[in-house]
Amino acid sequence: MMPYLKERYGNPNSLHSFGQEAMFGVDQARQEVAAFLNSLPEEIIFTSGATESNNLVIKGLLQEILRQNRSISGGCRCSDQAGSDEAKFSCSEKGSFTPHIITSSVEHKAVLRPCAQMEEQGVELSYLPVDKKGVVNVEELENSIKENTVLVSIMYVNSEVGSVQPIQRLGKIIKKINEQRLREWQKRGAKKKLPRPQRIHFHTDATQALNFYSCDVRKLRLDFLSFSGHKIYGPKGVGALYVRQGSRLSPLQSGGQQEKNLRSGTLNTPGIVGLGKAVSLLTPEKQEKNNQKIAKLRDYLVEGLTQKIPDIYLTTDRRNSTPAHAHVIFRGAEGESVLVSLDLEGIAVSTGSACASQDLHPSYVLEAMGVKAEEANSCIRFSLGKHTTKKEIDQVIKVLPGIVERIRQMNPIYKNK
Amino acid sequence: MMPYLKERYGNPNSLHSFGQEAMFGVDQARQEVAAFLNSLPEEIIFTSGATESNNLVIKGLLQEILRQNRSISGGCRCSDQAGSDEAKFSCSEKGSFTPHIITSSVEHKAVLRPCAQMEEQGVELSYLPVDKKGVVNVEELENSIKENTVLVSIMYVNSEVGSVQPIQRLGKIIKKINEQRLREWQKRGAKKKLPRPQRIHFHTDATQALNFYSCDVRKLRLDFLSFSGHKIYGPKGVGALYVRQGSRLSPLQSGGQQEKNLRSGTLNTPGIVGLGKAVSLLTPEKQEKNNQKIAKLRDYLVEGLTQKIPDIYLTTDRRNSTPAHAHVIFRGAEGESVLVSLDLEGIAVSTGSACASQDLHPSYVLEAMGVKAEEANSCIRFSLGKHTTKKEIDQVIKVLPGIVERIRQMNPIYKNK
Repeated sequence: MMPYLKERYGNPNSLHSFGQEAMFGVDQARQEVAAFLNSLPEEIIFTSGATESNNLVIKGLLQEILRQNRSISGGCRCSDQAGSDEAKFSCSEKGSFTPHIITSSVEHKAVLRPCAQMEEQGVELSYLPVDKKGVVNVEELENSIKENTVLVSIMYVNSEVGSVQPIQRLGKIIKKINEQRLREWQKRGAKKKLPRPQRIHFHTDATQALNFYSCDVRKLRLDFLSFSGHKIYGPKGVGALYVRQGSRLSPLQSGGQQEKNLRSGTLNTPGIVGLGKAVSLLTPEKQEKNNQKIAKLRDYLVEGLTQKIPDIYLTTDRRNSTPAHAHVIFRGAEGESVLVSLDLEGIAVSTGSACASQDLHPSYVLEAMGVKAEEANSCIRFSLGKHTTKKEIDQVIKVLPGIVERIRQMNPIYKNK
Repeated sequence: MMPYLKERYGNPNSLHSFGQEAMFGVDQARQEVAAFLNSLPEEIIFTSGATESNNLVIKGLLQEILRQNRSISGGCRCSDQAGSDEAKFSCSEKGSFTPHIITSSVEHKAVLRPCAQMEEQGVELSYLPVDKKGVVNVEELENSIKENTVLVSIMYVNSEVGSVQPIQRLGKIIKKINEQRLREWQKRGAKKKLPRPQRIHFHTDATQALNFYSCDVRKLRLDFLSFSGHKIYGPKGVGALYVRQGSRLSPLQSGGQQEKNLRSGTLNTPGIVGLGKAVSLLTPEKQEKNNQKIAKLRDYLVEGLTQKIPDIYLTTDRRNSTPAHAHVIFRGAEGESVLVSLDLEGIAVSTGSACASQDLHPSYVLEAMGVKAEEANSCIRFSLGKHTTKKEIDQVIKVLPGIVERIRQMNPIYKNK
């Protein structure tokens, strides 16, 4: 990043050489991201982070569909045709209809809140439930898809507990239904001159997945994929969005028409170059090596803690969770107190996601997994990375039993159980 | 910025010390920006740049007003009450009404396009014209304000030609009308129990102004002010928005509720720290010193070119333009050709704004100033900065006459005039 912070400071959209040398860095980063995702470079849009990418997909797609609705139905957005016979085929082309989004109850707020904002504007919204280990039910998706479903947004790896979602299997189902829709239209709708059916778009927030898993957008059958730089050892303030060729999104921020008019604003050259570099280091071999190394440390941590501290449990199934996460419930020990005590020892942990750290409610993710409220308040998320050492884990195993013991002593309800 | 890129990499929203040391940098930057703008620190929102800030103000304010409309009128957005007697007092509280935006015909696209997007959604939009020197008419504003006007967005300094807008005088007029509305309501509306009148909000995109002019938001009577880091020798990918206390905006990107829920997403700590540092270097003394130094060089450039090259003119009035801009029309010499020839000499210029550099239409800014299309295509924008030297200017004055002469030779229409 340094040359782009210090010497190559041209605006990539300027025509002169100083601009072009900056654009060279952006182009290279775009190719690096595309290579990792198995997409075309022109399918990559640079943003300020995964939050923006998620908002751009959800609001951009739905606002584009609502806009098309309005322009056809003359400004009115009333929706009273759902379920009618003809609505089977792309109601949106024929008049107004209410688009439907499916997401999960354990998404990051950067997906849940844009979805809720669209619901406020008249969009229909369904949440897929998850099992006790935080994994969505694949069959449930098939039951949830309706004639007006236009978007399914399911995160790849849960940011709080680390559970991995069956993205490839979800993608297969969506593809199957899209093909069914098309066949049915070819059989019956095309003759009646009904327009082509609405596509169900598939989006995943892969922010927590890139370090360990394949994010091949063709294999996963994705229309959209979001991620951030800072979760893959790249810089903060930059992210990317894969937008499948042919998808139409209304821009969140409009202006100078950068990024194919999907994301206006002077390109953050140093950030983009840093993001590209970080992605280029994620080869399948390195992912696998890191995966194994970190999983070993995570297992060592979980086993060490389980041996030394009674009445604790891991919320997820380790076989179906990233090695980066160890999300543990310490019954009777309030998570925030554990966090503060560990912080005094120089150990940084979290009780949930950093974005929700000011929120005092028990985690909605744990609630969706069926964890009782009092246990949900006793959780700690340990995050491991490629720089984590066995020595650091040993230190946690050494100090944590005393901390948990002390906090439990101060909890009269737990003590008297 | 370096410590925040290398060592202090915590997420500022994390509760542990690594997070808090990052938040310290963000807090300091917020104070630096607030000190410069004469605002409260809590009135500063960090964004990814001026484009995002402008979009957040325009879409966020109007969407919030439309949302309030919908929640009162039950989902319908029809607008048929404008002009009615009671509409004088905050129609939005009483039922649906069509909000009205005033902007100018020479704004950056990052203002014009969000305004146009809101117009598509049913908002009314007016453009203030400018005079031949690119300055909006203050009287015209007073004539344009209507009962349903909720936002006036006028840039501080034009990004293409450098003309400075009379922000303080515009702010005075808006304040006067806001006070009139309130007085009229107190006299007549309050008795009838009509709700308080809608405020006319005043926004300026000050991106090109910070280096040279006071941006005291109280003195200028602003509700919103946008700017970017990279125009003030700070980093790309970061910007700020001043949001007057009490203003309500619907967020563009929602999620983890950072920045008082106005701008979710992990904070770009290094970028924010860099932006704060850049702003802190903009003391009135340094602004004045730079202003004088750069104006002298700009005058030297303009006079040198005018002496050596016939048939050229400066589009703006130098007394009412930033020293950073010298926007010159070289009659008969196509701007793009001049740009490319200068680039080969290592001299970087622009024909308009970098954001519009791929656009082949003549500049809408010059069109609004009444410049003929064939002259508009013959313009060059020279941008000077605090690092510009007399030696560099001498080089431009040395090579440019030959370049213009050569290009004019190839223009049969000009040659035969």
